[in-house]
Amino acid sequence: MKEQGILFILSGPSGVGKGTVRKQLFNQDPNLKYSISMTTREPRIGEKDGIDYFYRSREHFKDLIKKDAFIEHAQYVNNYYGTPKEYVENMLSLGHDVFLEIEVQGALQVKQNYEKGIFIFLLPPSLEDLKTRILRRGTESEQLVLDRLSEARKEIEMMEEYDYVVVNDNVHHAVDKIKSIIQSEHCKRERVAKQYKQLLEVE
Amino acid sequence: MKEQGILFILSGPSGVGKGTVRKQLFNQDPNLKYSISMTTREPRIGEKDGIDYFYRSREHFKDLIKKDAFIEHAQYVNNYYGTPKEYVENMLSLGHDVFLEIEVQGALQVKQNYEKGIFIFLLPPSLEDLKTRILRRGTESEQLVLDRLSEARKEIEMMEEYDYVVVNDNVHHAVDKIKSIIQSEHCKRERVAKQYKQLLEVE
Repeated sequence: MKEQGILFILSGPSGVGKGTVRKQLFNQDPNLKYSISMTTREPRIGEKDGIDYFYRSREHFKDLIKKDAFIEHAQYVNNYYGTPKEYVENMLSLGHDVFLEIEVQGALQVKQNYEKGIFIFLLPPSLEDLKTRILRRGTESEQLVLDRLSEARKEIEMMEEYDYVVVNDNVHHAVDKIKSIIQSEHCKRERVAKQYKQLLEVE
Repeated sequence: MKEQGILFILSGPSGVGKGTVRKQLFNQDPNLKYSISMTTREPRIGEKDGIDYFYRSREHFKDLIKKDAFIEHAQYVNNYYGTPKEYVENMLSLGHDVFLEIEVQGALQVKQNYEKGIFIFLLPPSLEDLKTRILRRGTESEQLVLDRLSEARKEIEMMEEYDYVVVNDNVHHAVDKIKSIIQSEHCKRERVAKQYKQLLEVE
């Protein structure tokens, strides 16, 4: 019997750099399965449908919610975000690890459904730094920047629900730490239990 | 206030290769503080006092037990092994990680005194493999080899008390996994709690 894969959830305040960290992580570890989220927000410059997100209409999205097709979905600053259920469950049962990169609201919902998931919170070095990042992105109005910062403060308080906290002071360091978390989770005693019981039977 | 260091305990059956793994780990990570154990057993060829162990007489060792100078000590195949208390506690309170490489009996004793320690069990790929390693070492009589194998089987059952299990199928892989465990433990949410509370206050 093949062991179940591990579901890793990377989350954190909007603007902290989750996307950049996730992309570098996947470049370095081709074995990770990434679950692409669905969203109703407009693609930012350079983003592509089916790569960064599946960009769908609100009508389409709401229809899928009715069909219970998401392991989580959330509304965030007037847009919907969600993780399609089928792909994640298939990969886990085949023994593959799945990596989600989602907003904080969504992550907390995943936790209710998949408490065995490993929850990683990506933290900005400071709120000042987060503000700079959002402004630098240049895609949001001033009011939206203030909304996001106020949201970020609340989200950082939700960190208590997470297993790990990684400060994104440097993308390479952050990626390195997340790779360590993935590797060490595979060494958790509970997970290798079956393996060592077989070991004792041999001889 | 400086954060307390983490105590890592590497243990596993005699002959599994704890010493080799520990040496490579320390070559690669000069920041780790290694606590040298004390023993009453004879040095093996190539081992040096004050580097591999402190080699002491039974009388000396028993005197230190009376003075409560060990965080753990154990008798194993007619010899005593122990970890001097003072060094470990000083390093931890200075914020340094301390790495212990000890026998299974000793590790379980450390767990009673330092439940916050992170316990790593080094596992042979099979009992056959363990037997080969002990025989290859060529320092033990046949009866001692059988004793050690029987002991190893019991010790592997004690793995339930450990946090992580690392299979020593290859020294480089094992060292790499232990480095991941050390790094990821530093990302545990409970440990970075103080740090992120400061973050929220800034701005």
